[in-house]
Amino acid sequence: MSSALELATDRSGVAPDGPPRAVVRATTVADVQRTLAEASRTGTPVVTRGAGTGLAGGAAAGPDTIVLDVSGLDRILGIDPIDGIARVEPGVITAELDRAAAAHGLMYAPDPGSVAICTIGGNIATNAGGLRGAKYGVTRDSVLALDVVLADGTRLHLGRDTVKGVVGLDLVGLLVGSEGTLGVVVGATLRLLPRPARVGTAVAYFASVTAAAVAAAELGAAGLRPSVLELVDGKTLAAIDELRGTDHAGRGAALLLVQTDGFGAGEELAAVAAVLARTASALDTTHDVAAGAALAAARRDALPAIEARGRVLIEDIAVPRSRLADAVGGVHAIAEATGTDVYVFAHAGDGNLHPIIRLDPDPGAADRAAEEIFALALALGGTVSAEHGVGLLKRAWLERELGPDVVTLQRRIKDLFDPAGILNPGKAL
Amino acid sequence: MSSALELATDRSGVAPDGPPRAVVRATTVADVQRTLAEASRTGTPVVTRGAGTGLAGGAAAGPDTIVLDVSGLDRILGIDPIDGIARVEPGVITAELDRAAAAHGLMYAPDPGSVAICTIGGNIATNAGGLRGAKYGVTRDSVLALDVVLADGTRLHLGRDTVKGVVGLDLVGLLVGSEGTLGVVVGATLRLLPRPARVGTAVAYFASVTAAAVAAAELGAAGLRPSVLELVDGKTLAAIDELRGTDHAGRGAALLLVQTDGFGAGEELAAVAAVLARTASALDTTHDVAAGAALAAARRDALPAIEARGRVLIEDIAVPRSRLADAVGGVHAIAEATGTDVYVFAHAGDGNLHPIIRLDPDPGAADRAAEEIFALALALGGTVSAEHGVGLLKRAWLERELGPDVVTLQRRIKDLFDPAGILNPGKAL
Repeated sequence: MSSALELATDRSGVAPDGPPRAVVRATTVADVQRTLAEASRTGTPVVTRGAGTGLAGGAAAGPDTIVLDVSGLDRILGIDPIDGIARVEPGVITAELDRAAAAHGLMYAPDPGSVAICTIGGNIATNAGGLRGAKYGVTRDSVLALDVVLADGTRLHLGRDTVKGVVGLDLVGLLVGSEGTLGVVVGATLRLLPRPARVGTAVAYFASVTAAAVAAAELGAAGLRPSVLELVDGKTLAAIDELRGTDHAGRGAALLLVQTDGFGAGEELAAVAAVLARTASALDTTHDVAAGAALAAARRDALPAIEARGRVLIEDIAVPRSRLADAVGGVHAIAEATGTDVYVFAHAGDGNLHPIIRLDPDPGAADRAAEEIFALALALGGTVSAEHGVGLLKRAWLERELGPDVVTLQRRIKDLFDPAGILNPGKAL
Repeated sequence: MSSALELATDRSGVAPDGPPRAVVRATTVADVQRTLAEASRTGTPVVTRGAGTGLAGGAAAGPDTIVLDVSGLDRILGIDPIDGIARVEPGVITAELDRAAAAHGLMYAPDPGSVAICTIGGNIATNAGGLRGAKYGVTRDSVLALDVVLADGTRLHLGRDTVKGVVGLDLVGLLVGSEGTLGVVVGATLRLLPRPARVGTAVAYFASVTAAAVAAAELGAAGLRPSVLELVDGKTLAAIDELRGTDHAGRGAALLLVQTDGFGAGEELAAVAAVLARTASALDTTHDVAAGAALAAARRDALPAIEARGRVLIEDIAVPRSRLADAVGGVHAIAEATGTDVYVFAHAGDGNLHPIIRLDPDPGAADRAAEEIFALALALGGTVSAEHGVGLLKRAWLERELGPDVVTLQRRIKDLFDPAGILNPGKAL
C-alpha cells in the first residue's frame, strides 16, 4: 500500500511540501459523502485521486489537505451489449474496462498512453484523450451519465442512459475535465462501441520530422480519417531503440504510425499508404492485428523510453492540424535556442504534440523552454493543454489562453458548486 | 418579411397572446450587444430566434418581450479544408453549410429533419440531432468554439480551434442545448468531416413495427454501426404514400431505412442486409448515392405527410436502444387507449422516437396521450426530449426527469449567467 507521502503527488514530478493531513481510502460512496460533508464543515481542502498517473499536478496535495483516494471504488457494475453501455466505479483501470468490453465484441474507445495503469475517474477528471482519439474522440464523447458527490456531500445523478437527450443543461460535459474542482465522480455510465472487426496498420519513415508532419496533414486533405495517426521524432525513436533494442532511428528521422479500422480498413489502408508513399523513405503495412498492436506498443514506449534517460517535463500542446509542421519545427527551434534536450511525439490527427523536455543538466533552461512552447502553441492558435489538464503546472497560462472574462466566469461557476472552496483548491482554475 | 406576430412563435403550434413589444432584426454583433445591454438595464425579456423551426416553443414570445431575430447574421465566414473547420454566423441554413463543405470534399454532419430550413444557431440552441446522428453524433459533437453575447451585452469567445483542449471548464458544451437561456450565440466554429466517398442504402419492410424495432436492435448486437438507421411505422408510411403517390404501406407494416458510408460501405451494407433478411418481408439495397438520397428523402417526408392530414403534437422521446421495441409498442398501446391518431417514426440507432399525435378530433385526448408517452419514456429509462428541446411545452416534465436537486443546480447556473432573468425566461429551465 502506498505511503501518505506517495499519495500526495502524481506523475507530474511535483513534490509535496509534506504528508497530507489525512488520507481517506474510500471503498463506498458513503465514505466519499462523509469526507466531503466533514471537509465542507471544517473548510479543509480535499484532493481526490485515482491511480495518480496525472501529468499536470492535479492530484498534488499539500500538508493541510485531505487526500481522498477513490481507487478502491473499482468495480465494473455492468455491461449491456445491446445498449452499448458500461456502468463503472471511478477506480476501474481503463484497459480493464476495454478488456471487459471486448468479451462482448465492444470497445471502450478512449486509450490514453497510460491506459494500462490509469483510472476511468482520472480520465474523466482530465477529459483524457489517447491514440484512438483521431477517430473516436476524447473521454467526454464516451460519458453518458455521472454519479457525483458535491462539496457538501450531496449525491447527484447527471445525464442519462440514452445516447441523445437535451433536457436541461449539459452538466455531464461541465464535470468532465473539471479536474476535481466541481465534485467527486463516484460512478459513470459509459458508451461502448462495436469493436472493429479489422485493423490495418502502416508505419512510414521520413527524412525529416517536417516531412512526416506534412504527410500527416496530406492524409486529412485526402479525406482519410484513420483511427490512429501518430508522429514520433528522431530523438524519441533513438530513445525507444535504446530501451527496446530496435532500429527505428536507423530507418528515418521521423515515423508516422497510422491505423485504419472497420469494414473498410483494408481499402482505407491502401489509400493511406498511397499518400504516405509519395514522401516516405520507407513504408511497412500489415493487416495482422497482433503485428499492428506490436507497432502501436512501440509508440506507447515513447514516454518510458525518454524517462529512462532522466527526469523530464511532459508537455501537451495542441494546434490546428494545418499548423502541425510549424509546431514541431518551432519546438525543435526552441530546444536549440535554449540548449535543452527535447523529444517530440504527437497525436498528429488531433494536432496534439507532446514535447518532452529533459530537466538535466539545467532545470531552469527546461522551464524556459516549456514557457516558450506554451507561447508557441497560443501563437499558432492552439492550446497549452490538449488532454493532460491544467493542474498545478499550467495555471499561470489559464488566463493567457482564455482571457480574463472567461476565467472569471469559470471561477464563478466553481464557486457555485463549491462555495467553501474545498475541492482541489489552487488547481485547474 | 415576416410580421411581428409570426416572429413571436415557432413550428410548435404555440400561439402568442399578442405581438411582442419589439422586434430587433440583428445584422451585426453590435446589434445583439446593444439589445441585450438595454434589455438587462430595463429588465425586459428577450426571446432569440433564427428560422423559427423549433418544435417545443423555445422561440415563443409573449407580448411583453423583445424578439431578437438573428437570422440576418447569415454569413459563412470561412472554411478551412485542412483543419476541417468552418466559421459561421448563427443564421446560416444548416443544409447550406453542408453544401459549402461538400465543395471541399467535407460534410457538416448534423442533419435534422428540417435541415433545409433550420439555422445553425437554432441547432446549437437545441443541440439538434438528425439522421446521421447514429454514426456522427449530435450538434454538440461538431461545435469547437462559440462567440456568445451574455445578458449584459459582454461578448465572449468560448472554446478553441483545436479538436482537443482541456484548459478550463467546457462552457461550449454548457451553451449548446441551453435554448437561449444563458447567452446569444453570434458565431460558431464548427467541425467538418471528410465526406464519405461511398454510401450504401438498404430499405427493409416488416410484417409489424415490433419486428422492425427488433431488427434494428439486432444490427447493433451484430456490431454494425450504420450512419443512418431509421424506423417508420405503417400509419406514417400510409401518410407518405398519400402525399407522394408511393406504395410503401403496401409492402409492409413498417420500414427500416439503413445507410452505411465510408470505405467499407459496401461490405457493411452486405452485413446489414444479412441481418435484415432474417426477418424482413421485403428488402432492397442500392449503392447508388442518388437512389439512396431519394429513399432518405421519403423518410424526410414523414412529418410533412402527417401534417398534411391536420394539426399535430410532435413528440421526441428517447429510450435505451434495447427498449426501442417496448417504446414503439407502448406508444401504439397509448394511442389505442386514448383513442388518438398517433404516427411513429424513429432514429432507431439512437433509440429516439418521434410519436406524432393528431390534435383532431379531440385535443384533450392528444394532450393526455402525450403525457402518457412522456411517462412511458421515463419508465423505460429514457428522456422526454432527445433533440427538440424542452422549450415551453415540456417544462412541466423537467423536474420529473432530472429530479429537484439537479434542476435547482441548473437554475443557479442560469442565474449566474443571467442575473436579471431576461434571457428566454420561462423556457427550458
